[in-house]
Amino acid sequence: MEEPQRARRPGGRGARVGAAVHQAVTELISERGYGTFSVGDVAARAGVADSSVYRRWGSLEALLADVMLTYLNARSPMPDTGSVAGDLRAYAAAVAREITGPDGLALLRLAVALSTTGEQGLQARDALRDERTRQLQVMLDRATERDEDAPDALGVLDHVLAPMYIRVLFGIGPLTPEYVDGLVDRLLSAL
Amino acid sequence: MEEPQRARRPGGRGARVGAAVHQAVTELISERGYGTFSVGDVAARAGVADSSVYRRWGSLEALLADVMLTYLNARSPMPDTGSVAGDLRAYAAAVAREITGPDGLALLRLAVALSTTGEQGLQARDALRDERTRQLQVMLDRATERDEDAPDALGVLDHVLAPMYIRVLFGIGPLTPEYVDGLVDRLLSAL
Repeated sequence: MEEPQRARRPGGRGARVGAAVHQAVTELISERGYGTFSVGDVAARAGVADSSVYRRWGSLEALLADVMLTYLNARSPMPDTGSVAGDLRAYAAAVAREITGPDGLALLRLAVALSTTGEQGLQARDALRDERTRQLQVMLDRATERDEDAPDALGVLDHVLAPMYIRVLFGIGPLTPEYVDGLVDRLLSAL
Repeated sequence: MEEPQRARRPGGRGARVGAAVHQAVTELISERGYGTFSVGDVAARAGVADSSVYRRWGSLEALLADVMLTYLNARSPMPDTGSVAGDLRAYAAAVAREITGPDGLALLRLAVALSTTGEQGLQARDALRDERTRQLQVMLDRATERDEDAPDALGVLDHVLAPMYIRVLFGIGPLTPEYVDGLVDRLLSAL
């Protein structure tokens, strides 16, 4: 029996099932929105058994969070430029580009959906947040290892990511490079 | 013919209709959520004609934003303590109390809903944002008139409100008084 979310050998049956299920989720979110489909709907569209989805992901909420995590990791990977200023500027620029794109509210929409659907939703939201925070912390730890002063991950969330997300959500734009770099510089100068 | 959103004499028919419609909206959001009810549903529950709702608010989206504005104005009015630090600390504390309460995500849920339902949704979101920003600016202008250094409204949004909202949305808590005051102090010390 497979454990949930264990990485698989590329090209195997697990990878094919994963890709089909992720694709089905992406389509259903785009066509109908959160809260309108079940594990059964996902499984039917992906051509797999419901039990395969439950065995691998555990819940619809965990599956939704996994799809978002895969998406974020592909679109906004943590950079490694050699300096904390360079890393944070590159990361902030990638996030700004992403959230001002066609479905820039995707992460906020998911977080709202997961926050309002009970315990499994909250667990899935927390797992997604913890994994992205962990990745961010690895990036910041590299700076510390280079003897650079670095903010902590919550500081980046509070003063770089949160302002950009809230501005997009409330239609305050555009997120110019000057504005985005300014958020990073302001955080670094407060260290 | 009445103009939309014109203030009414307390206790008149306009006030009674307004209260009944607001109550109906609040109930429908709580029972069913955004995107699940129409102006007709609201009017039926409030015991008024659809045309009364359209004449006064113009659209369902504008009505939803008006209900939220009324709620925010009642729950998080702009304080007037005599100093910009006092005002910002009191305001931030009120927002923190509100968004860590039973439906703390109410504003974010509405903003997501309005942002994803077309042009009327975006207009209603912008009107709500502009009115709260205007109130905040009035508070900050009082500080300037007292010859205090004051941040601009966007600075408050970026570095005091946004971090609190995003922390609540992603389940990073609690928003302690030390944390909330610290956001205000950090903003003021950067002036």
